[in-house]
Amino acid sequence: MYMAKVVGSVVATQKDESLVGRKLMIVQPINSEMDPVRTEEVAADTVGAGIGELVLLVRGAGARKTQNEGTHTRDVVDSAIVGIIDRFDK
Amino acid sequence: MYMAKVVGSVVATQKDESLVGRKLMIVQPINSEMDPVRTEEVAADTVGAGIGELVLLVRGAGARKTQNEGTHTRDVVDSAIVGIIDRFDK
Amino acid sequence: MYMAKVVGSVVATQKDESLVGRKLMIVQPINSEMDPVRTEEVAADTVGAGIGELVLLVRGAGARKTQNEGTHTRDVVDSAIVGIIDRFDK
Amino acid sequence: MYMAKVVGSVVATQKDESLVGRKLMIVQPINSEMDPVRTEEVAADTVGAGIGELVLLVRGAGARKTQNEGTHTRDVVDSAIVGIIDRFDK
Amino acid sequence: MYMAKVVGSVVATQKDESLVGRKLMIVQPINSEMDPVRTEEVAADTVGAGIGELVLLVRGAGARKTQNEGTHTRDVVDSAIVGIIDRFDK
Repeated sequence: MYMAKVVGSVVATQKDESLVGRKLMIVQPINSEMDPVRTEEVAADTVGAGIGELVLLVRGAGARKTQNEGTHTRDVVDSAIVGIIDRFDK
Repeated sequence: MYMAKVVGSVVATQKDESLVGRKLMIVQPINSEMDPVRTEEVAADTVGAGIGELVLLVRGAGARKTQNEGTHTRDVVDSAIVGIIDRFDK
Repeated sequence: MYMAKVVGSVVATQKDESLVGRKLMIVQPINSEMDPVRTEEVAADTVGAGIGELVLLVRGAGARKTQNEGTHTRDVVDSAIVGIIDRFDK
Repeated sequence: MYMAKVVGSVVATQKDESLVGRKLMIVQPINSEMDPVRTEEVAADTVGAGIGELVLLVRGAGARKTQNEGTHTRDVVDSAIVGIIDRFDK
Repeated sequence: MYMAKVVGSVVATQKDESLVGRKLMIVQPINSEMDPVRTEEVAADTVGAGIGELVLLVRGAGARKTQNEGTHTRDVVDSAIVGIIDRFDK
């Protein structure tokens, strides 16, 4: 899993049917010093995350096993926001 | 998922049967500032994307679960274009 | 698998149900010289690792096959701590 | 998928049984300008590619779904050559 | 798949049960010029590789499909040594 900051969202009218009605957020991976690492990606929001919030990301098949999975029998998603980070303990 | 720009296509006569009849596009991943990031890759188009368009990419098993999946019982594809990006909201 | 050092933990109240009750540790991948490599990530602890310990990480579907898998019928986790490293032999 | 150039092959006598009889080629990923990108890897050839040819690579589970899959009930391969590139259209 | 050199091993007493009795080797990925590339990782040995040998690595689900898979009904491994490289032909 990765820590990331939500920086925006993507608007796409023409898309795979399994993406209809889902919030596709632009996320910037960060480290625990809040520095950006690697490059932005796009993740399906499953926990109601808003722009500016710190979130927990999963990639790959795990992103198709989120709590609203039952509503998607076919799903192309390969990245999902699965938690909102309150704080880091170090 | 990743944001990318379609920059070309690949012509391959000799290929796995599951790739016959599919559009294999060369895509350059970008960030939301439109800067190129990482390196070009090749993705199967499933939404009718053309050269110059901004698209949403999925990688891995998700790329084998697109809306035309029913037509491919065996599929080697590991990257697919699953949406055309209209705009970024930031 | 990767070698990593546990550097902290993530507190997230709002999260996917499959993450409730699990310890989500911030880990810094390292090499066998103990130098940090790549960037921090977040892994579910399955062996009782504490901050400062060197651990063995798995990523992807393997992270959903740990010894306490039976307790999670649906699991979004894509990274897990699966061992505590005593030493490197070189 | 990735574009790559075949630069050699690997000879390994002692190996997993699922690799016996397969051509294991060393491939250098490239971009559409023919510049090398990232680092060499090893891919199972499934289309008769020779040294110097430009090829299409798949990684992960897709590499275990190639047209000769029927001959391998158990397969460790995680990268395969699935096409020979004739040209790029840009 | 990747070419790598075995540089050591990891000793871990406390670990997932599926790792008990397995040789966990530290491997440094290399290219065909024998230059180190990327960073060290840890792979389960399935072919009797020793320190200093050049080996073939698989990652992901392929690493759980090796010839001794029958002995592990549950397996967290995401990287395995599946061959010993005799030479490169270029």
